[in-house]
Amino acid sequence: MTLDDLTARLRGGVPLAQLLQIEAIALDPLTIRMPAAALALRPGGTTSGPAMMALADVAMWAALLIANEGQDLSRTTQLAIQFLRAAAPGPVIAEPRILKPGRTLIYGEVWIRGEGDDRPAAHVTTQWAVTPLPTR
Amino acid sequence: MTLDDLTARLRGGVPLAQLLQIEAIALDPLTIRMPAAALALRPGGTTSGPAMMALADVAMWAALLIANEGQDLSRTTQLAIQFLRAAAPGPVIAEPRILKPGRTLIYGEVWIRGEGDDRPAAHVTTQWAVTPLPTR
Amino acid sequence: MTLDDLTARLRGGVPLAQLLQIEAIALDPLTIRMPAAALALRPGGTTSGPAMMALADVAMWAALLIANEGQDLSRTTQLAIQFLRAAAPGPVIAEPRILKPGRTLIYGEVWIRGEGDDRPAAHVTTQWAVTPLPTR
Amino acid sequence: MTLDDLTARLRGGVPLAQLLQIEAIALDPLTIRMPAAALALRPGGTTSGPAMMALADVAMWAALLIANEGQDLSRTTQLAIQFLRAAAPGPVIAEPRILKPGRTLIYGEVWIRGEGDDRPAAHVTTQWAVTPLPTR
Repeated sequence: MTLDDLTARLRGGVPLAQLLQIEAIALDPLTIRMPAAALALRPGGTTSGPAMMALADVAMWAALLIANEGQDLSRTTQLAIQFLRAAAPGPVIAEPRILKPGRTLIYGEVWIRGEGDDRPAAHVTTQWAVTPLPTR
Repeated sequence: MTLDDLTARLRGGVPLAQLLQIEAIALDPLTIRMPAAALALRPGGTTSGPAMMALADVAMWAALLIANEGQDLSRTTQLAIQFLRAAAPGPVIAEPRILKPGRTLIYGEVWIRGEGDDRPAAHVTTQWAVTPLPTR
Repeated sequence: MTLDDLTARLRGGVPLAQLLQIEAIALDPLTIRMPAAALALRPGGTTSGPAMMALADVAMWAALLIANEGQDLSRTTQLAIQFLRAAAPGPVIAEPRILKPGRTLIYGEVWIRGEGDDRPAAHVTTQWAVTPLPTR
Repeated sequence: MTLDDLTARLRGGVPLAQLLQIEAIALDPLTIRMPAAALALRPGGTTSGPAMMALADVAMWAALLIANEGQDLSRTTQLAIQFLRAAAPGPVIAEPRILKPGRTLIYGEVWIRGEGDDRPAAHVTTQWAVTPLPTR
Protein backbone atom coordinates (compact mmCIF):
# COMPACT_ATOMS: atom_id res chain seq x y z
CA MET A 1 0.00 0.00 0.00
CA THR A 2 1.42 3.42 -0.91
CA LEU A 3 1.06 6.48 1.26
CA ASP A 4 -1.50 7.87 -1.17
CA ASP A 5 -3.51 4.64 -1.07
CA LEU A 6 -3.47 4.69 2.70
CA THR A 7 -4.49 8.34 2.90
CA ALA A 8 -7.37 7.69 0.50
CA ARG A 9 -8.47 4.73 2.56
CA LEU A 10 -8.43 6.64 5.83
CA ARG A 11 -10.36 9.56 4.40
CA GLY A 12 -12.88 7.29 2.70
CA GLY A 13 -13.57 5.38 5.90
CA VAL A 14 -13.79 8.27 8.35
CA PRO A 15 -15.35 11.49 7.04
CA LEU A 16 -13.73 13.43 9.89
CA ALA A 17 -10.32 12.32 8.60
CA GLN A 18 -11.23 13.86 5.25
CA LEU A 19 -12.40 17.02 6.87
CA LEU A 20 -9.35 17.34 9.10
CA GLN A 21 -7.12 16.60 6.09
CA ILE A 22 -5.44 13.73 7.90
CA GLU A 23 -2.76 12.11 5.73
CA ALA A 24 -0.15 9.36 5.90
CA ILE A 25 3.32 10.85 5.39
CA ALA A 26 5.73 8.00 6.20
CA LEU A 27 5.59 4.24 6.47
CA ASP A 28 8.63 3.46 8.60
CA PRO A 29 7.81 4.41 11.22
CA LEU A 30 4.21 4.90 10.23
CA THR A 31 3.45 8.60 10.65
CA ILE A 32 0.07 10.24 10.29
CA ARG A 33 -0.18 14.02 10.01
CA MET A 34 -2.95 16.50 10.69
CA PRO A 35 -2.33 20.03 9.39
CA ALA A 36 -3.20 23.03 11.52
CA ALA A 37 -6.55 23.46 9.84
CA ALA A 38 -8.96 25.84 11.47
CA LEU A 39 -11.32 23.02 12.32
CA ALA A 40 -8.74 21.25 14.43
CA LEU A 41 -7.86 24.26 16.53
CA ARG A 42 -9.19 25.89 19.63
CA PRO A 43 -9.41 29.62 19.93
CA GLY A 44 -5.79 30.47 20.71
CA GLY A 45 -4.40 28.23 18.04
CA THR A 46 -3.56 24.97 19.79
CA THR A 47 -4.91 21.67 18.55
CA SER A 48 -8.16 20.67 20.26
CA GLY A 49 -8.54 17.49 22.26
CA PRO A 50 -11.27 16.08 20.00
CA ALA A 51 -9.07 16.60 16.93
CA MET A 52 -6.21 14.75 18.62
CA MET A 53 -8.51 11.89 19.60
CA ALA A 54 -9.73 11.62 16.02
CA LEU A 55 -6.14 11.63 14.78
CA ALA A 56 -5.17 8.91 17.25
CA ASP A 57 -8.03 6.61 16.29
CA VAL A 58 -7.38 7.06 12.59
CA ALA A 59 -3.64 6.52 13.11
CA MET A 60 -4.15 3.19 14.87
CA TRP A 61 -6.55 2.13 12.14
CA ALA A 62 -3.82 2.97 9.63
CA ALA A 63 -1.38 0.74 11.51
CA LEU A 64 -3.86 -2.14 11.43
CA LEU A 65 -4.62 -1.67 7.74
CA ILE A 66 -0.88 -1.82 7.01
CA ALA A 67 -0.44 -4.91 9.21
CA ASN A 68 -3.35 -6.65 7.48
CA GLU A 69 -2.41 -5.65 3.93
CA GLY A 70 -5.42 -3.45 3.52
CA GLN A 71 -7.99 -5.76 5.04
CA ASP A 72 -10.22 -4.06 7.61
CA LEU A 73 -10.61 -6.69 10.28
CA SER A 74 -11.06 -4.92 13.58
CA ARG A 75 -12.85 -2.10 15.35
CA THR A 76 -11.99 0.12 18.32
CA THR A 77 -13.27 -1.22 21.63
CA GLN A 78 -11.37 1.11 23.95
CA LEU A 79 -9.31 4.27 23.63
CA ALA A 80 -7.67 6.19 26.46
CA ILE A 81 -5.85 9.46 25.91
CA GLN A 82 -3.64 11.29 28.35
CA PHE A 83 -3.02 14.91 27.44
CA LEU A 84 0.52 15.81 28.43
CA ARG A 85 1.03 19.37 27.22
CA ALA A 86 -0.51 21.74 24.69
CA ALA A 87 0.78 21.03 21.21
CA ALA A 88 2.63 23.97 19.72
CA PRO A 89 0.53 25.77 17.11
CA GLY A 90 1.00 24.06 13.77
CA PRO A 91 0.57 20.57 12.31
CA VAL A 92 0.38 17.56 14.59
CA ILE A 93 1.98 14.15 14.03
CA ALA A 94 0.80 10.74 15.29
CA GLU A 95 2.93 7.61 15.48
CA PRO A 96 0.88 4.45 16.10
CA ARG A 97 2.39 1.17 17.21
CA ILE A 98 0.80 -2.24 17.66
CA LEU A 99 2.06 -3.45 21.03
CA LYS A 100 0.23 -6.79 21.09
CA PRO A 101 -1.39 -8.36 18.06
CA GLY A 102 -3.90 -11.08 18.79
CA ARG A 103 -6.54 -13.33 17.36
CA THR A 104 -9.34 -11.65 19.25
CA LEU A 105 -7.94 -8.49 20.88
CA ILE A 106 -5.25 -6.10 19.67
CA TYR A 107 -3.54 -3.51 21.87
CA GLY A 108 -1.55 -0.53 20.73
CA GLU A 109 -0.35 2.94 21.54
CA VAL A 110 -0.14 6.25 19.70
CA TRP A 111 2.22 9.10 20.49
CA ILE A 112 1.10 12.56 19.39
CA ARG A 113 3.48 15.50 19.01
CA GLY A 114 3.56 18.87 17.36
CA GLU A 115 5.46 18.58 14.07
CA GLY A 116 9.11 19.34 14.72
CA ASP A 117 8.69 19.00 18.48
CA ASP A 118 10.31 16.12 20.36
CA ARG A 119 8.08 16.41 23.37
CA PRO A 120 4.83 14.46 23.34
CA ALA A 121 1.53 16.34 23.45
CA ALA A 122 -0.53 13.23 24.21
CA HIS A 123 -0.23 9.48 24.72
CA VAL A 124 -2.94 7.06 23.70
CA THR A 125 -3.50 3.41 24.48
CA THR A 126 -6.18 1.61 22.53
CA GLN A 127 -7.72 -1.83 22.23
CA TRP A 128 -9.32 -3.22 19.12
CA ALA A 129 -11.44 -6.34 18.70
CA VAL A 130 -10.92 -8.56 15.72
CA THR A 131 -14.27 -8.80 13.97
CA PRO A 132 -15.54 -12.23 13.01
CA LEU A 133 -15.35 -12.87 9.31
CA PRO A 134 -18.79 -12.78 7.75
CA THR A 135 -20.18 -16.25 7.21
CA ARG A 136 -22.19 -16.95 4.12
CA MET B 1 -27.27 29.89 31.26
CA THR B 2 -29.93 28.99 28.69
CA LEU B 3 -29.63 26.05 26.33
CA ASP B 4 -28.96 28.46 23.48
CA ASP B 5 -26.22 30.21 25.42
CA LEU B 6 -24.62 26.88 26.22
CA THR B 7 -24.81 25.67 22.63
CA ALA B 8 -23.22 28.91 21.43
CA ARG B 9 -20.46 28.58 23.99
CA LEU B 10 -19.68 24.98 23.03
CA ARG B 11 -19.58 25.75 19.32
CA GLY B 12 -17.50 28.86 19.85
CA GLY B 13 -14.91 27.03 21.90
CA VAL B 14 -14.56 23.86 19.83
CA PRO B 15 -14.83 24.31 16.06
CA LEU B 16 -15.55 20.58 15.68
CA ALA B 17 -18.64 21.05 17.86
CA GLN B 18 -19.84 23.69 15.40
CA LEU B 19 -19.12 21.45 12.46
CA LEU B 20 -20.82 18.42 14.00
CA GLN B 21 -23.79 20.64 14.98
CA ILE B 22 -23.51 19.60 18.61
CA GLU B 23 -26.21 21.25 20.71
CA ALA B 24 -27.48 21.31 24.29
CA ILE B 25 -31.10 20.10 24.40
CA ALA B 26 -31.87 19.70 28.11
CA LEU B 27 -30.47 20.93 31.40
CA ASP B 28 -31.85 18.40 33.89
CA PRO B 29 -30.32 16.01 33.24
CA LEU B 30 -27.87 17.83 31.03
CA THR B 31 -28.20 16.33 27.56
CA ILE B 32 -26.01 17.08 24.58
CA ARG B 33 -27.11 16.00 21.10
CA MET B 34 -25.26 15.35 17.88
CA PRO B 35 -27.44 14.97 14.79
CA ALA B 36 -26.73 12.25 12.25
CA ALA B 37 -24.77 14.63 10.04
CA ALA B 38 -22.77 13.07 7.26
CA LEU B 39 -19.53 14.12 8.89
CA ALA B 40 -20.23 12.13 12.01
CA LEU B 41 -21.01 8.90 10.22
CA ARG B 42 -19.02 5.99 8.90
CA PRO B 43 -19.90 4.42 5.60
CA GLY B 44 -22.85 2.25 6.60
CA GLY B 45 -24.49 5.00 8.58
CA THR B 46 -23.43 4.43 12.17
CA THR B 47 -21.79 7.16 14.20
CA SER B 48 -17.99 7.06 14.02
CA GLY B 49 -15.81 6.63 17.07
CA PRO B 50 -14.04 9.99 16.62
CA ALA B 51 -17.40 11.79 16.46
CA MET B 52 -18.50 10.09 19.69
CA MET B 53 -15.24 11.03 21.40
CA ALA B 54 -15.68 14.66 20.33
CA LEU B 55 -19.25 14.60 21.62
CA ALA B 56 -18.14 13.15 24.95
CA ASP B 57 -15.44 15.73 25.50
CA VAL B 58 -17.74 18.60 24.59
CA ALA B 59 -20.49 17.16 26.81
CA MET B 60 -18.25 17.05 29.87
CA TRP B 61 -17.08 20.57 29.14
CA ALA B 62 -20.75 21.59 29.07
CA ALA B 63 -21.29 20.02 32.49
CA LEU B 64 -18.35 21.93 33.90
CA LEU B 65 -19.47 25.22 32.37
CA ILE B 66 -22.88 24.74 33.98
CA ALA B 67 -21.32 23.83 37.34
CA ASN B 68 -19.08 26.90 37.21
CA GLU B 69 -21.74 29.33 35.98
CA GLY B 70 -20.06 29.81 32.67
CA GLN B 71 -16.51 30.16 33.87
CA ASP B 72 -14.04 27.98 31.99
CA LEU B 73 -11.73 26.77 34.71
CA SER B 74 -10.45 23.36 33.67
CA ARG B 75 -9.05 21.31 30.81
CA THR B 76 -9.17 17.63 29.88
CA THR B 77 -6.24 15.64 31.20
CA GLN B 78 -7.55 12.15 30.51
CA LEU B 79 -10.42 10.61 28.58
CA ALA B 80 -11.16 6.90 28.22
CA ILE B 81 -13.97 5.60 26.05
CA GLN B 82 -15.34 2.09 25.93
CA PHE B 83 -17.40 1.33 22.85
CA LEU B 84 -20.24 -0.97 23.82
CA ARG B 85 -22.31 -1.41 20.68
CA ALA B 86 -22.84 0.39 17.38
CA ALA B 87 -25.24 3.30 17.82
CA ALA B 88 -28.36 2.92 15.74
CA PRO B 89 -28.29 5.20 12.69
CA GLY B 90 -29.60 8.60 13.68
CA PRO B 91 -28.79 11.30 16.21
CA VAL B 92 -26.70 10.50 19.26
CA ILE B 93 -27.22 11.76 22.80
CA ALA B 94 -24.62 12.29 25.53
CA GLU B 95 -25.35 12.63 29.24
CA PRO B 96 -22.37 13.91 31.23
CA ARG B 97 -22.12 13.69 34.99
CA ILE B 98 -19.51 15.06 37.38
CA LEU B 99 -18.72 12.19 39.72
CA LYS B 100 -16.12 13.96 41.84
CA PRO B 101 -15.57 17.70 41.85
CA GLY B 102 -12.29 18.85 43.29
CA ARG B 103 -9.99 21.78 43.80
CA THR B 104 -7.31 20.37 41.51
CA LEU B 105 -8.78 17.33 39.71
CA ILE B 106 -12.32 16.67 38.53
CA TYR B 107 -13.62 13.23 37.50
CA GLY B 108 -16.73 12.50 35.51
CA GLU B 109 -18.48 10.10 33.19
CA VAL B 110 -20.48 10.41 30.00
CA TRP B 111 -23.03 7.93 28.72
CA ILE B 112 -23.65 7.95 24.98
CA ARG B 113 -26.75 6.46 23.36
CA GLY B 114 -28.59 6.59 20.09
CA GLU B 115 -31.53 8.98 20.46
CA GLY B 116 -34.56 6.97 21.54
CA ASP B 117 -32.47 3.96 22.45
CA ASP B 118 -32.13 2.88 26.09
CA ARG B 119 -29.01 0.84 25.51
CA PRO B 120 -25.67 2.63 25.79
CA ALA B 121 -23.41 2.86 22.74
CA ALA B 122 -20.38 4.00 24.71
CA HIS B 123 -19.23 4.86 28.22
CA VAL B 124 -16.62 7.49 28.92
CA THR B 125 -14.68 8.36 32.04
CA THR B 126 -12.69 11.56 32.03
CA GLN B 127 -10.47 13.59 34.29
CA TRP B 128 -10.03 17.35 34.14
CA ALA B 129 -7.46 19.53 35.84
CA VAL B 130 -8.49 22.80 37.35
CA THR B 131 -6.37 25.46 35.74
CA PRO B 132 -4.64 27.97 37.96
CA LEU B 133 -6.18 31.40 37.83
CA PRO B 134 -4.00 33.81 35.91
CA THR B 135 -1.96 36.01 38.19
CA ARG B 136 -1.42 39.62 37.30
CA MET C 1 -25.07 -19.26 45.70
CA THR C 2 -25.01 -18.15 49.32
CA LEU C 3 -22.76 -15.40 50.62
CA ASP C 4 -20.60 -18.03 52.31
CA ASP C 5 -20.29 -20.00 49.08
CA LEU C 6 -19.30 -16.88 47.21
CA THR C 7 -16.74 -15.86 49.83
CA ALA C 8 -15.22 -19.34 49.75
CA ARG C 9 -15.05 -19.22 45.98
CA LEU C 10 -13.36 -15.83 45.90
CA ARG C 11 -10.79 -16.80 48.50
CA GLY C 12 -10.11 -20.13 46.84
CA GLY C 13 -9.50 -18.52 43.46
CA VAL C 14 -7.38 -15.57 44.52
CA PRO C 15 -4.98 -16.19 47.41
CA LEU C 16 -4.72 -12.43 47.98
CA ALA C 17 -8.47 -12.37 48.64
CA GLN C 18 -7.91 -14.95 51.35
CA LEU C 19 -5.05 -12.99 52.81
CA LEU C 20 -6.93 -9.70 52.75
CA GLN C 21 -9.98 -11.45 54.27
CA ILE C 22 -12.20 -10.25 51.46
CA GLU C 23 -15.79 -11.41 51.95
CA ALA C 24 -19.20 -11.10 50.31
CA ILE C 25 -21.63 -9.44 52.71
CA ALA C 26 -24.73 -8.73 50.61
CA LEU C 27 -26.23 -9.94 47.36
CA ASP C 28 -28.60 -7.12 46.44
CA PRO C 29 -26.77 -5.00 45.69
CA LEU C 30 -23.75 -7.23 45.63
CA THR C 31 -21.36 -5.89 48.24
CA ILE C 32 -17.82 -7.10 48.86
CA ARG C 33 -15.99 -6.08 52.03
CA MET C 34 -12.35 -5.84 52.98
CA PRO C 35 -11.65 -5.37 56.68
CA ALA C 36 -8.99 -2.93 57.82
CA ALA C 37 -6.40 -5.64 58.15
CA ALA C 38 -2.83 -4.49 58.62
CA LEU C 39 -1.86 -5.88 55.22
CA ALA C 40 -4.29 -3.65 53.41
CA LEU C 41 -3.14 -0.45 55.05
CA ARG C 42 -0.44 2.08 54.45
CA PRO C 43 1.48 3.55 57.32
CA GLY C 44 -0.98 6.15 58.56
CA GLY C 45 -3.89 3.76 58.45
CA THR C 46 -5.61 4.41 55.12
CA THR C 47 -6.26 1.60 52.68
CA SER C 48 -3.48 1.19 50.13
CA GLY C 49 -4.04 1.49 46.40
CA PRO C 50 -2.93 -2.10 45.68
CA ALA C 51 -5.39 -3.44 48.24
CA MET C 52 -8.22 -1.44 46.65
CA MET C 53 -7.28 -2.70 43.19
CA ALA C 54 -7.31 -6.29 44.46
CA LEU C 55 -10.70 -5.69 46.05
CA ALA C 56 -12.08 -4.21 42.83
CA ASP C 57 -10.92 -7.10 40.68
CA VAL C 58 -12.26 -9.69 43.10
CA ALA C 59 -15.56 -7.78 43.39
CA MET C 60 -16.14 -7.78 39.63
CA TRP C 61 -15.28 -11.47 39.51
CA ALA C 62 -17.91 -12.00 42.20
CA ALA C 63 -20.50 -10.18 40.07
CA LEU C 64 -19.68 -12.40 37.10
CA LEU C 65 -19.81 -15.59 39.15
CA ILE C 66 -23.27 -14.57 40.38
CA ALA C 67 -24.42 -13.69 36.87
CA ASN C 68 -23.18 -17.03 35.55
CA GLU C 69 -24.49 -19.15 38.41
CA GLY C 70 -21.04 -20.03 39.62
CA GLN C 71 -19.47 -20.78 36.26
CA ASP C 72 -16.13 -19.05 35.77
CA LEU C 73 -16.25 -17.99 32.14
CA SER C 74 -14.19 -14.85 31.80
CA ARG C 75 -10.94 -13.16 32.73
CA THR C 76 -9.89 -9.54 33.27
CA THR C 77 -8.50 -7.88 30.15
CA GLN C 78 -8.47 -4.30 31.39
CA LEU C 79 -8.91 -2.51 34.68
CA ALA C 80 -8.69 1.24 35.25
CA ILE C 81 -8.94 2.77 38.70
CA GLN C 82 -9.35 6.42 39.57
CA PHE C 83 -8.52 7.27 43.16
CA LEU C 84 -10.88 9.97 44.34
CA ARG C 85 -10.06 10.51 48.00
CA ALA C 86 -8.36 8.62 50.81
CA ALA C 87 -10.70 6.07 52.34
CA ALA C 88 -11.36 6.72 56.00
CA PRO C 89 -9.46 4.30 58.24
CA GLY C 90 -11.51 1.15 58.64
CA PRO C 91 -13.10 -1.48 56.44
CA VAL C 92 -13.68 -0.79 52.76
CA ILE C 93 -16.72 -1.77 50.68
CA ALA C 94 -16.89 -2.49 46.93
CA GLU C 95 -20.05 -2.52 44.84
CA PRO C 96 -19.54 -4.06 41.39
CA ARG C 97 -21.98 -3.68 38.55
CA ILE C 98 -22.03 -5.25 35.10
CA LEU C 99 -22.74 -2.37 32.72
CA LYS C 100 -22.66 -4.36 29.49
CA PRO C 101 -22.77 -8.13 29.30
CA GLY C 102 -21.65 -9.61 26.03
CA ARG C 103 -20.78 -12.78 24.21
CA THR C 104 -17.11 -11.87 23.87
CA LEU C 105 -16.49 -8.78 26.01
CA ILE C 106 -18.04 -7.71 29.31
CA TYR C 107 -17.77 -4.21 30.76
CA GLY C 108 -18.44 -3.16 34.31
CA GLU C 109 -17.71 -0.71 37.06
CA VAL C 110 -16.90 -0.92 40.76
CA TRP C 111 -17.44 1.81 43.33
CA ILE C 112 -15.25 1.66 46.42
CA ARG C 113 -16.06 3.47 49.66
CA GLY C 114 -15.07 3.37 53.28
CA GLU C 115 -17.71 1.42 55.23
CA GLY C 116 -20.30 3.85 56.49
CA ASP C 117 -19.10 6.61 54.19
CA ASP C 118 -21.26 7.82 51.33
CA ARG C 119 -18.43 9.41 49.43
CA PRO C 120 -16.52 7.23 46.97
CA ALA C 121 -12.83 6.54 47.56
CA ALA C 122 -12.26 5.12 44.08
CA HIS C 123 -14.05 4.32 40.82
CA VAL C 124 -13.08 1.40 38.63
CA THR C 125 -14.01 0.46 35.10
CA THR C 126 -13.05 -2.97 33.89
CA GLN C 127 -13.35 -5.14 30.83
CA TRP C 128 -13.43 -8.91 30.84
CA ALA C 129 -13.11 -11.32 27.94
CA VAL C 130 -15.34 -14.36 27.77
CA THR C 131 -13.07 -17.36 27.56
CA PRO C 132 -13.78 -19.94 24.90
CA LEU C 133 -15.23 -23.13 26.28
CA PRO C 134 -12.70 -25.93 26.20
CA THR C 135 -13.27 -28.23 23.25
CA ARG C 136 -12.78 -31.95 23.65
CA MET D 1 19.86 4.99 47.01
CA THR D 2 21.08 1.39 46.85
CA LEU D 3 18.88 -1.48 45.72
CA ASP D 4 18.62 -2.64 49.32
CA ASP D 5 17.57 0.81 50.49
CA LEU D 6 14.94 0.98 47.79
CA THR D 7 13.60 -2.48 48.58
CA ALA D 8 13.36 -1.60 52.25
CA ARG D 9 11.55 1.60 51.41
CA LEU D 10 9.01 -0.13 49.17
CA ARG D 11 8.28 -2.85 51.72
CA GLY D 12 8.03 -0.35 54.55
CA GLY D 13 5.55 1.80 52.69
CA VAL D 14 3.29 -0.89 51.26
CA PRO D 15 2.70 -3.94 53.47
CA LEU D 16 1.56 -5.92 50.41
CA ALA D 17 4.99 -5.34 48.87
CA GLN D 18 6.51 -6.92 51.95
CA LEU D 19 4.14 -9.82 51.79
CA LEU D 20 4.65 -10.40 48.08
CA GLN D 21 8.44 -10.12 48.62
CA ILE D 22 8.72 -7.41 46.00
CA GLU D 23 12.33 -6.28 45.55
CA ALA D 24 14.39 -3.90 43.44
CA ILE D 25 16.96 -5.86 41.44
CA ALA D 26 18.44 -3.31 39.02
CA LEU D 27 18.67 0.46 38.73
CA ASP D 28 19.39 0.95 35.04
CA PRO D 29 16.85 0.24 33.79
CA LEU D 30 14.97 0.18 37.06
CA THR D 31 13.66 -3.35 37.51
CA ILE D 32 11.33 -4.54 40.23
CA ARG D 33 10.85 -8.26 40.82
CA MET D 34 8.11 -10.32 42.41
CA PRO D 35 8.99 -13.95 43.10
CA ALA D 36 6.50 -16.71 42.37
CA ALA D 37 5.30 -16.79 45.94
CA ALA D 38 2.15 -18.75 46.59
CA LEU D 39 0.28 -15.58 47.51
CA ALA D 40 0.82 -14.05 44.10
CA LEU D 41 -0.44 -17.03 42.14
CA ARG D 42 -3.78 -18.28 40.97
CA PRO D 43 -4.61 -21.94 41.14
CA GLY D 44 -2.77 -23.23 38.05
CA GLY D 45 0.38 -21.33 38.87
CA THR D 46 0.18 -18.13 36.86
CA THR D 47 0.52 -14.74 38.50
CA SER D 48 -2.81 -13.25 39.52
CA GLY D 49 -4.06 -9.94 38.21
CA PRO D 50 -4.19 -8.30 41.65
CA ALA D 51 -0.57 -9.28 42.32
CA MET D 52 0.49 -7.73 38.99
CA MET D 53 -1.43 -4.54 39.77
CA ALA D 54 0.27 -4.30 43.16
CA LEU D 55 3.64 -4.86 41.50
CA ALA D 56 2.94 -2.15 38.92
CA ASP D 57 1.93 0.44 41.48
CA VAL D 58 4.93 -0.30 43.67
CA ALA D 59 7.23 -0.22 40.64
CA MET D 60 6.09 3.24 39.58
CA TRP D 61 6.47 4.44 43.15
CA ALA D 62 10.03 3.12 43.04
CA ALA D 63 10.71 5.11 39.86
CA LEU D 64 9.42 8.27 41.51
CA LEU D 65 11.44 7.70 44.69
CA ILE D 66 14.57 7.33 42.56
CA ALA D 67 13.73 10.44 40.53
CA ASN D 68 13.15 12.46 43.70
CA GLU D 69 16.19 11.14 45.61
CA GLY D 70 14.06 9.34 48.13
CA GLN D 71 11.52 12.06 48.75
CA ASP D 72 7.94 10.81 48.59
CA LEU D 73 6.13 13.63 46.83
CA SER D 74 3.24 12.12 44.91
CA ARG D 75 0.38 9.65 45.06
CA THR D 76 -1.40 7.51 42.49
CA THR D 77 -4.45 9.18 40.96
CA GLN D 78 -5.06 6.76 38.10
CA LEU D 79 -3.81 3.35 37.05
CA ALA D 80 -4.92 1.38 34.01
CA ILE D 81 -3.68 -2.13 33.30
CA GLN D 82 -4.11 -4.11 30.11
CA PHE D 83 -3.51 -7.82 30.52
CA LEU D 84 -1.85 -9.12 27.38
CA ARG D 85 -1.11 -12.78 28.07
CA ALA D 86 -0.74 -15.07 31.07
CA ALA D 87 2.72 -14.72 32.59
CA ALA D 88 4.66 -17.95 32.50
CA PRO D 89 4.80 -19.60 35.93
CA GLY D 90 7.70 -18.14 37.87
CA PRO D 91 8.88 -14.73 39.01
CA VAL D 92 7.56 -11.60 37.36
CA ILE D 93 9.52 -8.47 36.45
CA ALA D 94 8.26 -4.87 36.20
CA GLU D 95 10.02 -2.03 34.39
CA PRO D 96 8.57 1.38 35.22
CA ARG D 97 9.27 4.50 33.21
CA ILE D 98 8.30 8.12 33.82
CA LEU D 99 6.97 9.34 30.47
CA LYS D 100 6.10 12.87 31.56
CA PRO D 101 7.29 14.48 34.75
CA GLY D 102 5.40 17.54 35.83
CA ARG D 103 4.88 20.03 38.61
CA THR D 104 1.34 18.86 39.32
CA LEU D 105 0.76 15.63 37.35
CA ILE D 106 3.18 12.84 36.45
CA TYR D 107 2.47 10.18 33.82
CA GLY D 108 4.27 6.90 33.39
CA GLU D 109 4.08 3.34 32.16
CA VAL D 110 5.09 -0.06 33.49
CA TRP D 111 5.80 -3.14 31.43
CA ILE D 112 5.34 -6.47 33.19
CA ARG D 113 6.89 -9.72 31.95
CA GLY D 114 7.66 -13.17 33.23
CA GLU D 115 11.33 -13.30 34.21
CA GLY D 116 13.32 -14.49 31.23
CA ASP D 117 10.43 -13.90 28.85
CA ASP D 118 10.64 -11.17 26.22
CA ARG D 119 6.91 -11.00 25.67
CA PRO D 120 4.91 -8.64 27.89
CA ALA D 121 2.28 -10.05 30.23
CA ALA D 122 0.72 -6.66 30.95
CA HIS D 123 1.06 -2.96 30.19
CA VAL D 124 0.20 -0.27 32.68
CA THR D 125 -0.25 3.47 32.33
CA THR D 126 -0.51 5.50 35.49
CA GLN D 127 -0.92 9.08 36.59
CA TRP D 128 0.35 10.51 39.86
CA ALA D 129 -0.43 13.84 41.46
CA VAL D 130 2.32 15.80 43.09
CA THR D 131 1.28 16.40 46.68
CA PRO D 132 1.56 19.90 48.08
CA LEU D 133 4.38 20.29 50.52
CA PRO D 134 3.12 20.61 54.07
CA THR D 135 3.09 24.18 55.26
CA ARG D 136 4.04 24.98 58.81
